[in-house]
Amino acid sequence: MILEAVILHIRAGESAAFEAVFKQAVPIISSMKGFIQIELQKCMEVADQYLLLVQWETLEDHTQGFRGSPEYQEWRKLLHHFYEPFPVVEHYERIL
Amino acid sequence: MILEAVILHIRAGESAAFEAVFKQAVPIISSMKGFIQIELQKCMEVADQYLLLVQWETLEDHTQGFRGSPEYQEWRKLLHHFYEPFPVVEHYERIL
Repeated sequence: MILEAVILHIRAGESAAFEAVFKQAVPIISSMKGFIQIELQKCMEVADQYLLLVQWETLEDHTQGFRGSPEYQEWRKLLHHFYEPFPVVEHYERIL
Repeated sequence: MILEAVILHIRAGESAAFEAVFKQAVPIISSMKGFIQIELQKCMEVADQYLLLVQWETLEDHTQGFRGSPEYQEWRKLLHHFYEPFPVVEHYERIL
């Protein structure tokens, strides 16, 4: 099991719209092979900043399965225009 | 419930020592009022980078309760010398 972690910076003034669209987009990702869980967390100190946490069974379920799928094109179209700058995506393995 | 999230950069070559000391230090934080859960996650792409996630009942349980406690001084002494640079600590509220 691995954790995808991404800090998202949303264009100023678009956070409410982003949250609404994100909720609509969840079924796209949650139907993918290897998907386990998703969390969207809103930063208390920095306006328009979020932490996205997605658990996948394997790294490849995210980097190849999801990113190589038609569903990812739909996810991109719905969400990527909210991000400024485009985020760095990292993957983590739990130590404890 | 709030999430403390911190990206930790460990001095080169000290990650194994950091992990060992971190495991010893967990009971210090897990005994504090308002503590719910802790995760230490190791980055797969960036050497010596970790993601620390701590769930607290309230923001103040972390920022005032823990940081104002004698236990925090012990936590600092054990762990802070591993960090370079000193990390930015942020707090998040779950949206979904």
